[in-house]
Amino acid sequence: MEIFKEIGPLKAFLRQQRTLNPSIGLVPTMGALHNGHLALINASRNTNSLTVCSIFVNPAQFNNPADLEKYPRTPEADIRLLSEAGCNALFMPDKKEMYQTSGIIKFDFGHLDKILEGEFRPGHFSGVALVVSKLFHIVNPDRAYFGQKDFQQFRIVSQLVKELNFDLELVCAPTTREPSGLAMSSRNARLSKEERQQATIFYRTLTFAKQAIKNGKTFFWVKSEVTKMCEAENVKLEYFELADQENLNLLKNVSPTVPAVLLMAGYVGGVRLIDNMLMD
Amino acid sequence: MEIFKEIGPLKAFLRQQRTLNPSIGLVPTMGALHNGHLALINASRNTNSLTVCSIFVNPAQFNNPADLEKYPRTPEADIRLLSEAGCNALFMPDKKEMYQTSGIIKFDFGHLDKILEGEFRPGHFSGVALVVSKLFHIVNPDRAYFGQKDFQQFRIVSQLVKELNFDLELVCAPTTREPSGLAMSSRNARLSKEERQQATIFYRTLTFAKQAIKNGKTFFWVKSEVTKMCEAENVKLEYFELADQENLNLLKNVSPTVPAVLLMAGYVGGVRLIDNMLMD
Repeated sequence: MEIFKEIGPLKAFLRQQRTLNPSIGLVPTMGALHNGHLALINASRNTNSLTVCSIFVNPAQFNNPADLEKYPRTPEADIRLLSEAGCNALFMPDKKEMYQTSGIIKFDFGHLDKILEGEFRPGHFSGVALVVSKLFHIVNPDRAYFGQKDFQQFRIVSQLVKELNFDLELVCAPTTREPSGLAMSSRNARLSKEERQQATIFYRTLTFAKQAIKNGKTFFWVKSEVTKMCEAENVKLEYFELADQENLNLLKNVSPTVPAVLLMAGYVGGVRLIDNMLMD
Repeated sequence: MEIFKEIGPLKAFLRQQRTLNPSIGLVPTMGALHNGHLALINASRNTNSLTVCSIFVNPAQFNNPADLEKYPRTPEADIRLLSEAGCNALFMPDKKEMYQTSGIIKFDFGHLDKILEGEFRPGHFSGVALVVSKLFHIVNPDRAYFGQKDFQQFRIVSQLVKELNFDLELVCAPTTREPSGLAMSSRNARLSKEERQQATIFYRTLTFAKQAIKNGKTFFWVKSEVTKMCEAENVKLEYFELADQENLNLLKNVSPTVPAVLLMAGYVGGVRLIDNMLMD
């Protein structure tokens, strides 16, 4: 696996590789890699002849400096995992390389970046759109892979790609879960053993809610039950919502014509986690 | 010259041409072409083996619906001029082709899109950044050509390209002027013969101001003189400013270390015109 810390040499490498490879896949990450990331690498390898992974803990998408500070960083393990997974190239720039000009551009996605994560993490999605635009222009991939766990992020990036006519295909890979149901996340590394058990409440409430709604319970009732379940586990819920999968408009209930998704965020100890589940 | 109204066929054509041409130049326009545009086409032809021109009157960058409505449109003449100028491909999509998804994205350039044109045309530069991003992704040019007449636009597009790492080179071509000094602009087509004479006040005041500042007059004094000169010609000045060429911060006076530019906007009859002049 080739490793690049600078944009210039990466672009030179890719220019050459492009003549040899029919398609290039990009897996943008913030490192501290887990099986969820490796599933994205595999998905890219299955479709593209060359797979590039990027590792960059993007300051622009952290609204909370403490969260940025505490974000897990495991570069040596990441390199080993990617190499074993058959990733062809790794781009791991530092902040100076990624933000060479003093930045002034902000993105506004209207409703889409004001609700759910947007409400609790102001500026987060502008930072995501910024770094994703940079990575897309640097790597110029044919396909880019994101995880369903960050559902709203995928919707934001989809909107970016569609509305700005980026010439690439986005792929959303299903959330990879621990046997306990806990969605894999780099932030899980910050959980104690007890907290990791507590954190399974995310998957348990989502599963419960999905089934209850299917059984005809109102979302109002479900949300109140979920709130109690989280309180009982000492998990501080930030939101638990039912939304339109397409535009993330909040829904009061499911309907046969609108594909819906359950989304939630909350704190387990000092660690903020998110999860979601599609309604069929 | 090949003419495309749809994105798909243009991209297919360019994919094929890219294998035959070492570089592609793009000249984005809103049509009603004049010699200023043709100078951009020539600049592109001098450096690139393939030149693409786009003609699209972009609704997203018009804050004033009447201005959009009255914007000159001369497609047949444009096609003839481009063909004669040796342009290789023309992209002239309609609104539906360019805005296929319902748009929600807005760009914010901080200070840079709030001053000068930004103050009088709120939302204008977000619309410019949007359509330029689209065109860059559709055409994927090696170089893109813009006129100095829209100085602030060039600064905005430069910021966009640098900050989002677009993989292309921007070229700013000097303003083309009538023998009278009037900067060529598609909007000049809306001027009566008398108004066209009045409009030369833009060039006359810029030349006067540049010389007066060189002679040691304060910008405060110069601005007051310019205001009187415009009033005498019945031209309604919107702004007349001295700014840092790089960040467009307004300046009170020139200094040897800060390259500066004079920028102005005003109404001649019902037509809003802009012009600018670099201080050496």
